[in-house]
Amino acid sequence: MLKGIPPIISPDLIKILMEMGHGDEIVLADGNFPSASHANHLIRCDGHGIPELLTAILEFLPIDTYVEFPVVGMDVVSGDTVEPIIWEKYEEIIYEQFNYSFPIKLIDRFEFYERTKNAYAVVATSETAQYANIILKKGVI
Amino acid sequence: MLKGIPPIISPDLIKILMEMGHGDEIVLADGNFPSASHANHLIRCDGHGIPELLTAILEFLPIDTYVEFPVVGMDVVSGDTVEPIIWEKYEEIIYEQFNYSFPIKLIDRFEFYERTKNAYAVVATSETAQYANIILKKGVI
Amino acid sequence: MLKGIPPIISPDLIKILMEMGHGDEIVLADGNFPSASHANHLIRCDGHGIPELLTAILEFLPIDTYVEFPVVGMDVVSGDTVEPIIWEKYEEIIYEQFNYSFPIKLIDRFEFYERTKNAYAVVATSETAQYANIILKKGVI
Amino acid sequence: MLKGIPPIISPDLIKILMEMGHGDEIVLADGNFPSASHANHLIRCDGHGIPELLTAILEFLPIDTYVEFPVVGMDVVSGDTVEPIIWEKYEEIIYEQFNYSFPIKLIDRFEFYERTKNAYAVVATSETAQYANIILKKGVI
Amino acid sequence: MLKGIPPIISPDLIKILMEMGHGDEIVLADGNFPSASHANHLIRCDGHGIPELLTAILEFLPIDTYVEFPVVGMDVVSGDTVEPIIWEKYEEIIYEQFNYSFPIKLIDRFEFYERTKNAYAVVATSETAQYANIILKKGVI
Amino acid sequence: MLKGIPPIISPDLIKILMEMGHGDEIVLADGNFPSASHANHLIRCDGHGIPELLTAILEFLPIDTYVEFPVVGMDVVSGDTVEPIIWEKYEEIIYEQFNYSFPIKLIDRFEFYERTKNAYAVVATSETAQYANIILKKGVI
Amino acid sequence: MLKGIPPIISPDLIKILMEMGHGDEIVLADGNFPSASHANHLIRCDGHGIPELLTAILEFLPIDTYVEFPVVGMDVVSGDTVEPIIWEKYEEIIYEQFNYSFPIKLIDRFEFYERTKNAYAVVATSETAQYANIILKKGVI
Amino acid sequence: MLKGIPPIISPDLIKILMEMGHGDEIVLADGNFPSASHANHLIRCDGHGIPELLTAILEFLPIDTYVEFPVVGMDVVSGDTVEPIIWEKYEEIIYEQFNYSFPIKLIDRFEFYERTKNAYAVVATSETAQYANIILKKGVI
Amino acid sequence: MLKGIPPIISPDLIKILMEMGHGDEIVLADGNFPSASHANHLIRCDGHGIPELLTAILEFLPIDTYVEFPVVGMDVVSGDTVEPIIWEKYEEIIYEQFNYSFPIKLIDRFEFYERTKNAYAVVATSETAQYANIILKKGVI
Amino acid sequence: MLKGIPPIISPDLIKILMEMGHGDEIVLADGNFPSASHANHLIRCDGHGIPELLTAILEFLPIDTYVEFPVVGMDVVSGDTVEPIIWEKYEEIIYEQFNYSFPIKLIDRFEFYERTKNAYAVVATSETAQYANIILKKGVI
Repeated sequence: MLKGIPPIISPDLIKILMEMGHGDEIVLADGNFPSASHANHLIRCDGHGIPELLTAILEFLPIDTYVEFPVVGMDVVSGDTVEPIIWEKYEEIIYEQFNYSFPIKLIDRFEFYERTKNAYAVVATSETAQYANIILKKGVI
Repeated sequence: MLKGIPPIISPDLIKILMEMGHGDEIVLADGNFPSASHANHLIRCDGHGIPELLTAILEFLPIDTYVEFPVVGMDVVSGDTVEPIIWEKYEEIIYEQFNYSFPIKLIDRFEFYERTKNAYAVVATSETAQYANIILKKGVI
Repeated sequence: MLKGIPPIISPDLIKILMEMGHGDEIVLADGNFPSASHANHLIRCDGHGIPELLTAILEFLPIDTYVEFPVVGMDVVSGDTVEPIIWEKYEEIIYEQFNYSFPIKLIDRFEFYERTKNAYAVVATSETAQYANIILKKGVI
Repeated sequence: MLKGIPPIISPDLIKILMEMGHGDEIVLADGNFPSASHANHLIRCDGHGIPELLTAILEFLPIDTYVEFPVVGMDVVSGDTVEPIIWEKYEEIIYEQFNYSFPIKLIDRFEFYERTKNAYAVVATSETAQYANIILKKGVI
Repeated sequence: MLKGIPPIISPDLIKILMEMGHGDEIVLADGNFPSASHANHLIRCDGHGIPELLTAILEFLPIDTYVEFPVVGMDVVSGDTVEPIIWEKYEEIIYEQFNYSFPIKLIDRFEFYERTKNAYAVVATSETAQYANIILKKGVI
Repeated sequence: MLKGIPPIISPDLIKILMEMGHGDEIVLADGNFPSASHANHLIRCDGHGIPELLTAILEFLPIDTYVEFPVVGMDVVSGDTVEPIIWEKYEEIIYEQFNYSFPIKLIDRFEFYERTKNAYAVVATSETAQYANIILKKGVI
Repeated sequence: MLKGIPPIISPDLIKILMEMGHGDEIVLADGNFPSASHANHLIRCDGHGIPELLTAILEFLPIDTYVEFPVVGMDVVSGDTVEPIIWEKYEEIIYEQFNYSFPIKLIDRFEFYERTKNAYAVVATSETAQYANIILKKGVI
Repeated sequence: MLKGIPPIISPDLIKILMEMGHGDEIVLADGNFPSASHANHLIRCDGHGIPELLTAILEFLPIDTYVEFPVVGMDVVSGDTVEPIIWEKYEEIIYEQFNYSFPIKLIDRFEFYERTKNAYAVVATSETAQYANIILKKGVI
Repeated sequence: MLKGIPPIISPDLIKILMEMGHGDEIVLADGNFPSASHANHLIRCDGHGIPELLTAILEFLPIDTYVEFPVVGMDVVSGDTVEPIIWEKYEEIIYEQFNYSFPIKLIDRFEFYERTKNAYAVVATSETAQYANIILKKGVI
Repeated sequence: MLKGIPPIISPDLIKILMEMGHGDEIVLADGNFPSASHANHLIRCDGHGIPELLTAILEFLPIDTYVEFPVVGMDVVSGDTVEPIIWEKYEEIIYEQFNYSFPIKLIDRFEFYERTKNAYAVVATSETAQYANIILKKGVI
C-alpha cells in the first residue's frame, strides 16, 4: 500500500494504467465476461464490482477528449428487456471526476468482444449487474 | 465464475488451495505485510479484507486437527497497547464453519515472518485492522 | 483436495473453468482425439472417461442458454454404422444437473476440429467410447 | 494413447519414469499428501487411486534389488490405532509383477517428507486410504 | 530405461507419440532434411537410421486406417535416376508389424516440406539413404 | 502517465513500491553503485539524480517509525576527507514530506553492500554526488 | 556508467542502438504516446524529455542518407491550431551533430502509429511538448 | 575450443550450422546490416570480417548443388558507382574449398532483406566492405 | 550434418563440448545411470553405446594432462564379481586417439555420483555393459 | 555499429560493462578457460585475442583506484617454466590508457577460478597465449 493510492488498485493495475498511452483502451469486465480469452493483458480483480474500480481508476486515468465517444458500453441484446441501471451509476462516477457527462456509446455484444481483443488490457471483476462491461479510452495529460 | 464458488475466490487462489496438502500453511496477510518479499506463492487480493476471504476459504479448506495449534496469529509487539479485536471476528468465522473454537496461537512478529517463508502461499489483502495476519494449516479430508 | 470439490477435478481444471466466461467453449475429448495439436489450453485427465468428468464439471459450469445449441457432439462419419450410445449417457447427466434436456447438436468431424482450435480449453481423457467428444459452451451466473 | 501403454499412464508420467535411473525414487502420494510443496517433479493424477497406478507403473519400472528396502511406506503415527489394509494390496500387486515379496519398510511421517524432497518425482493421486503413501526406488535393466 | 520400451525411444519421443491423436502426423526425417526449420516439435535422434526408429515406433503407434494413404514418402526429384531401395525396407517393417501392406504415397519434395510444417512432430535422424523421409499418420486404438 | 503520479516514477517503480511491505527496504543508489550485482529487484533510472527520485518516492512511501533508524546512508570511507553535502539535501526532502527529521544512520561501505543484498529493490540512478547512496525502510499506512 | 557515454543512455538503450542496422527505425515518444502497445522493443526513459535524449543518441547513431527523409515527425492533427516549437529545437540538435539540416517529414498521427509498429524500438520519454514524437532511421558507418 | 574447429566458430554457430538442413539458408551480414530485425536465429560475430568467417564455415557446410544459385549477394543500389571487390575474394574462398566456382547471383537490396527473413540464421559480423552481405544455401552430405 | 563431424555428435553435444574449458568434466553415462537427477547439463543419446560416442568425442576433445587421472571410471561394487571388460575397450579407443594409455582411475559408486553433480555435462546413453560409466576431464589446446 | 564504439565491442558486452559498478569485476578469459562453468554473465568473443578486447574495453571502463590491485592475473603453475610475455603487453595497453602502470597481482590458478565465480561477468575469448587470463575491477567516474 502507498499513500494516495486506493487499496483496490493492485500493483499490476497501476502499472498497466501507467503503460497505456493516448488512445489505448482498457475494458472493465463483469464476472461473466470472457476476459481470459479476449485480453492482451489481464488484470484480475475477483470479488470486486465495477463501480468501485471505475471510481479508483478515474482518479488517475485521463479520458480521451479527441474522440466523440471515449466511453463505450455493451448494448442490450436484441430481445432482452432488461434496462441496465448501472449505466447511470457510471455516468455519476464519471461526472464526479470530470464535471462532465461523457455520453456512453453502446455497441453490439460481438462488436464489443472484437474491440476487447484490441484493447491494451482487461480488468476482470466479479460485477453482477447486467450489461456492466465498459471500455475507457485513455487521454492525454 | 462458477456455481458454488464465491466470487472473491480467484482462479489462482482456488488452484493454490487445492495444491496444498496436509500440513502446508497459507498466510492471510494484511495490507502492510511484506508479502511479496516473504511468499513462495503470492496471491494478491487487493482491496479485500481478511474476514471475507477467511470465510470463503474455510468453505473449502480443512484445518489440521493433528496439531495443537493449526491457527496462528501475530502477537502484539511489546510496548504496543492495542488490543486487536479482529481475533474475535476470526474465532466467530472459524466457529461458524467448524462448530469448534480452534485456539489462535500468537507468535512474535519476526517468528511470524520466518514461518511465512516456509508457508506454501501468502494471500496479500488490504486488511487495515491491526495484527490481522493469520496462518492456517491445512488438514485432511 | 478441498471440501466440496470432487477429486477428479484437478487444480488446473478448476482454474480453467473459472477463467472461462460467457460463450467460451471447453472440449471434453476422448483418448484418440488430437488434443495436444488442437488445444489453446490443454488439461490432461489420462485414465478417466468423459461421463465422470462431465458429471463433475457440470456441478460448477453454467451452460449458455443464449444460444440454441450450447452442447455440441461429433457426428458419425459417413459410412460408419456405429450408433453412439454414450450420447444418451450425456443427456442423462445433463438432465440430472439442469432438469432440462439440452439437445446435442452434431457436427462433422473436421468442423469439430476447427471449432476445437477456437475453444478455450481441451480436456484430454482416455474415454474409449466412439464419438464421445463433446463441446460445452459456458453460460452466465 | 499408444499400444501397450495403459491409459492411466500420462505422457509426462512415462517421460519421468524413463528419465529416472538406478537409485532414483518416485513417491506415489495420496490425496492429502503435501505433494506440490515437496516435489522436484510433480505429476498430477487427480481422481485416481494408488493401486491402479502402482499396477501400471510396475509394468515398466524395475525395482532396485541392490538395497534391502526398495519399497518404503509411511508408518502409522504414534497413537493412531488404524491398521492400514492397503499395504496388503500393495504387496499383492508387487508380488503379481515380480513373483517376489519386497518387504515394505515403514518410516516416520516427517522422515517420509524429507525423503520425498530428495525423490526424483511425486505422483499426486486422490487415494483416500490411510497411510497409502509409498516410495519406489528404481532398479536396473 | 523401462521394461518393454526399446532404448532407442527417448523420453521425449515416447511423450510426443502419446500426445499425438487421430490424424496427427509425425515425420521421420533423414540426416539432410531441414528438420529444425520445419518442425512444430523436434525430436533429435542423431546417429540413428530411420529403419530402426520406424521399427521401434510402430510397436506403439497405431496407423490411421480411415484414410487411403496413412504413410507418405518423398518422391524422387524429376531428373534424378536413383531408385530408392529403402522403401522396400519400410514396407517390410510395416508389414511385420501390421500384417498388412500400407501403400506408400509419394509426394513432391516441396509438398512434403509444406506437409511437414503441419505435422505434430519431426524426428531428425542421421539416415543416409536417399529419399528416406517418411510421414506416418496416427490412427485410433 | 497518470494524474497525480510524477513522470519520474516509472510503471515498474510504482509497482515495486506497492509490493513492498512493512520493514522491506529500498536502496537509492548512485551512478557508481554496483546495483545490478547486488539487487533482488533492479529499477533503472539512468540520467536521474537521487534527490528528485527521493522527493517523488516519499510522496507515496511511508517510512517505518517502529525502528530507530529507518533511513540509512553509506559512511565516508576511512581516510577520505570528503564531507558529503547531499545528506543535508536528503534531510530537507524528508523533513518537507514528514515534518520530522529522521536521523540518517551511517554504516560502513561493505555493510551497506550486504544490506543491499537483502533489500527488496535497488533504484539505480546516475547521481554523481559522493556518498549519496541511501536506504529507506517502508512503514505502515 | 562508462567513460564517454552520457548517463542518460541506459545499458538497454545502448544495446538496442547497437543492434539496429541500416534502415531500422527508432521512435522517440512523448509521455502520452501509446508506446507499450506499439513497440517491438520498448525502452523506458521516464522523467526525461526528448531533446536531451536526442542529443545523447545522435552522438552515436548515424542517420540514413540513402533516403530523402530519415527524420519523421507527427503532423498536427487537422483542426488543432498549435504550432509545435519543439521541431526547431530538434533541427538545432540535428544540425549541431551533423552540420546539416535534415528536413523533418511530417506524417499523419495514425500513419505514425502504423510506422511505429514496424520500428525496431520505441523510447518512451516523459516529454510534455506537443507533437514531439519523432522517428530516426539509422544509417551506415 | 575443440580440436579441428577454428576458434572463430562459436558454440552457437556450429550448433546452428548443424541444425540446418538441405535448402536452409544462412546470411553472412556486414556491420551495417539490419541483422537483429530480420533474423530468425541471430549469431553475433562482432569484430570479425566476413571472409574469415566464410572460410571457416565452408570447411563444414556443404553447398546446395540442386539449385542454380546456392550463393546470393546483394546487388549495387542503382546510382551507386562502387564496384565491390569483396566478391572476388568470396569467389576465391569458395573455389579454394570446392574446386568449383559457384556463380554469385545478385539480387536487389530489399529482395535480399525479404529473403533474409526466411533464412534459418543470420551471422552478424563487423565487415566494413561495401555490398559484402552474402547468402549460402546448405546442400547435402 | 556437417562435413567432418560424425553424425552421432548432435548439435547440442558439440556445443557443450566447445563450451567446456580446462578442467571441466563430462560424464558418459550408461542406460541405468541416474543422469537426469545428477546433471548440470544433460545431453541424451538414447539408443547409443558409450564406445561409439567416446570415439567420436575424442576426435574433438583434448584430455587434461595436468592431472594424474583425467579419466575416471566407476569401481565394481564390493561383493560384485563382475569383471568389466568394457574398460579395455575404452583404453583401446583412448590409445587410438592419443597414442598414449591414460590410466583409468576407479572410484566408488557414490563418489562417482557426487563428482557427476559437479561435472559440466552428462551424456545419457543406452550402454548396457556393466560399470561402463566414465568421466573425461577436458584439457587445453 | 555506432559512432565511437569499436566494432569488437558487442551490444551485450557494452551493456554488461555499463551495468557493472564500483568494485564489480570482469574476467577476460583465454580460449581454454572454463568460462561457461564459472561465469555469472558470459560474453562470448570467439576468435578474438585478449589484447584487442582489453584495449577496446579500457576506452570505457574506469579502474578501481581504491584498492591496491585492481588488475589481477593468473600465476604460473608451480613447476611450469613458461615466462608469460603477454603481461608486458597488458601493461603497455593499461599504461597507454591511464598513463599509469597498475601492477598486476598474480594469484594461484584455483584462487583465480574461485574469484571468477564472484565476478560480474566473464569475456570468453580465443586467446592462445599462456597465462593470459586477467581480472579487472571497475572504478568510479
